[in-house]
Order: sequence, then structure tokens, then C-alpha cells
Amino acid sequence: MRKLLVIGIGAGNPEHMTVQAINGLNRAEVLFIPDKGAKKNDLAELRRQICDRFVTNPNSRRVEFDVPVRAEPSPSYRATVDDWHEAIAAICEGLIRDELVEDGCGAFLIWGDPSLYDSALRILERVRSRGNVEFELEVIPGITAVQALAASHKMALNRIGDPILITTGRRLTQEGMPANAGSTVVMLDGKCAFNTLDDEDLVIHWGAYLGTPDEITLSGRLGDVGKEIAEVREKARMEKGWIMDTYLLRKPGEPEDN
Amino acid sequence: MRKLLVIGIGAGNPEHMTVQAINGLNRAEVLFIPDKGAKKNDLAELRRQICDRFVTNPNSRRVEFDVPVRAEPSPSYRATVDDWHEAIAAICEGLIRDELVEDGCGAFLIWGDPSLYDSALRILERVRSRGNVEFELEVIPGITAVQALAASHKMALNRIGDPILITTGRRLTQEGMPANAGSTVVMLDGKCAFNTLDDEDLVIHWGAYLGTPDEITLSGRLGDVGKEIAEVREKARMEKGWIMDTYLLRKPGEPEDN
Repeated sequence: MRKLLVIGIGAGNPEHMTVQAINGLNRAEVLFIPDKGAKKNDLAELRRQICDRFVTNPNSRRVEFDVPVRAEPSPSYRATVDDWHEAIAAICEGLIRDELVEDGCGAFLIWGDPSLYDSALRILERVRSRGNVEFELEVIPGITAVQALAASHKMALNRIGDPILITTGRRLTQEGMPANAGSTVVMLDGKCAFNTLDDEDLVIHWGAYLGTPDEITLSGRLGDVGKEIAEVREKARMEKGWIMDTYLLRKPGEPEDN
Repeated sequence: MRKLLVIGIGAGNPEHMTVQAINGLNRAEVLFIPDKGAKKNDLAELRRQICDRFVTNPNSRRVEFDVPVRAEPSPSYRATVDDWHEAIAAICEGLIRDELVEDGCGAFLIWGDPSLYDSALRILERVRSRGNVEFELEVIPGITAVQALAASHKMALNRIGDPILITTGRRLTQEGMPANAGSTVVMLDGKCAFNTLDDEDLVIHWGAYLGTPDEITLSGRLGDVGKEIAEVREKARMEKGWIMDTYLLRKPGEPEDN
């Protein structure tokens, strides 16, 4: 049976690669490389560097494939994602069937960790349920931007004994700060949702391009640094043509006893 | 100035080590190894294996130190932790002062990631604020048991667009399932808190000794597998003398549209 490895390659620092991920890269004969368009060329270049540095298997080859653009999420976010995933699943099915021999091993390289806000596993389950090609799956975890954020700020994500909520910018705007989490980590926020919050005394720890030489980090009281972060973010986005960022929000100090 | 590296060494699989962590290990002249008593000898042995395999710096030496046992958390959890951290901080201060030359580099090896339910960073901040020894701090992230859990179950932690709450067994028992998180990850649960929940239709993905050769994983409808997990867990704990486990809980299916 064909074997597919879904490999987390870290948040942008090639040295986030684990020994397990390096060995996985070298077990695969085919590395499937998504091409998400010219805008994020830096990331494509970074992935190329990772492959160049760590792939030593002389039988390894890279197969690039186009990823369709997702429609605007309207009226239903889930239905839009559904259609998009189905389209990608059809492409992946073709790649697995055509590029891998029947007992071949292929790998998908995923930024961060395949388990956190990434759709590769979900899409491969769709490929499987379409029933046209069989494969075995193996997942290799990787360092996420959330971990890189905490490392750069030299801090724990949680306060003592307190929960952490990992959520999206969209949710934070809709739902505000959760009452049940001492710390809130926000991902996939294109619109500086932190600046929609009422509480100016919240503390924010923000980072962009985490793990890369272009990393930017800022932190402080939301009322003091919220606008600055939005400005720095927009300037960086304009200059590079893209941005990836994440941040942690919490009330100041340690939690009350409970 | 002295330099301290706080290095995440992964969840138990030596191959979780990142290139950054391996390089960090080899930059340090002193590796500070906590000794948490005989009960978790397997973990001490595993850490020794990691050092033996990845340390190539001939000037590296290991300094083991005793960690005081935490008092039972009564009446105040926070105050108990506070006293305990202060005692460890005093020990660390002595180690840093006595074992490292003034421009020396030392490393603390942390299971999982220093940013997730680990107190090393908090304790080192205490050492700094005691004001008796100066140092620079660098944090290197590592693969957590939560990521190893998701990888072994070949699943994403989040449902599409949904938040994830990472919490403790103690909180889950007190507060029940959070309404605002599609997925709930529970750590530090010594008492199978999942069996205190009302909703038998929840789906649980559980794992113990994740990443090690002794890894056990179970999953299914809570009403069907909850008791089995508690039994398997207790049996394993008795046989090995210790257990580390974590799990993910969520409602079945994908979320409603919103």
C-alpha cells in the first residue's frame, strides 16, 4: 500500500525541524509541494531551503502542485471550506495515484504542526473516503508559530493552573475575550481583532514572521501598543506582500486563587 | 553574563528533538538535570538517552539536582505553588552561581515545551528577581504531548474554524465542558476527570506515554470507552509506577455553521 507522511516542518526557522521530520523527509520518494501563488514566495523559498538542507535521499523528487484559491466565505463559512477541500482532495487523489508507485512513500510538508489549523489531514481523509486510492497515513508533529511566539517572548502560554484558549481572529471579534481562559492565543487574524476589544488593560504578546530572520515581536498593555502593532503589521505586510502573525492576550498579573 | 537555555526536548520520543534543541544542548557547558525521585526513573533514563545520543560537545557536563516535593495543594493552590517555586528558585540560584563561570552557558532540559504547563520559566524569573545572579535567557520550543497525541490519532486538534481549550483535569471537574471550545484538551489529570462528565456522547481521544515505545492510545464515544480508559490507565500506572497521559474531548461530528 502507498504510504503518506504528513510532516510538520516548524514555524519558519529551519532549525525547528525535528529528527523525526528529517527522517520522514528522507523516507519519502516524492515530496508534494503546494504552490499557493506568488504572494508568499518567501515561504516557498524557505521550504526549498529546508529541503535542500535536510534531504539526503538521492531518490527524492519534488512535485509542485497548484492549490485552488478559496472563495470568499459567504454566506456559509463551512460550506465554502467544504467545496474548497473537495477541490483540493480531487487534486491530491490524482497526485497520489499518478506520482507514487503502489508501495511508494510520499510526504506533504506542513508549516507548523499538521494538528493546528491546518487542513491537510482533513483533506487526506476526504481522499480516502472517495475510495479511489488507498494509503496508510503517518503524522509527524512540528513546532507551531504559537510555540515560537512563547519562546521569543520567553514566557509560558498559561498562567499557573489556568486554561489556554486557542482561537481565530474571526471568533475573537464575534465573541470577545473568553471568560474561562486565563490566556487566549489568536491565530488566522487578518484584521487586528485585538483592537476591537473593550479592555485596554489586557496585555498582548504579538509576533510576526516568527522563527524567521524577519521576525517582529511587540508586547505591552493593549491600550498602549494596540495601534502600534496594527501600524507595524500593515507596514510589514505592504513591504513583504504578505504577513503571518499570532498573539497572546491575557489580563495583567497572575490569576486569583480558586 | 551567564547564559541560560531552556530547551524543550519533546514528549518522550528522542526524535522529537529539533535541530535547534540539539544545537542548544551542545552550546551549553552544563546541563542541569532535575531529579524528581525514583518513581519516574524511566523518564530520567530517557533523558540520559537523549543526552547520550545528541550531546557531542566534549566540554559538556551534567549536574543533577534534587527538586523538593510540592506540598498538597491546601488550602490555596496558588500559595502552595508559590512556596514550592520559591524553594526551587533558591536551588537554581545556587546552581547557576556555583556551576557556571561568569560567561558560561547552562541548559535546562524540559519535557515537552517550556511554554506549556511547565514552571521553569516562571522559576527562572523568580531567580532573576531575587537579584543575586544575573543571566540572559533563551527559550527553545519542543514538541508537546498534545501534539504527539494528535499525531498518533492522525487528527487535527481543532474542528474547522473552531477554538481549542487546553485545560487541566482539576478545571474540567470543577467547570465541566466549556461551551465556547469545539475541542478541549486536558492535561495534568491524575483522576480521569472525563468520567465525571454528564455527556456520554462526547468523543475522547486519549494517550499515555506518548512518543515512547510504551505509548497507549484509545478513542471512542465516552460512554463506551470511558471506563476502559480508566482501567487501562490504572493498570499501566501500577505496572510502571507512574503515568503521564493527555486527551482530547469534543462533541461528535463537525460544528454547526455560524
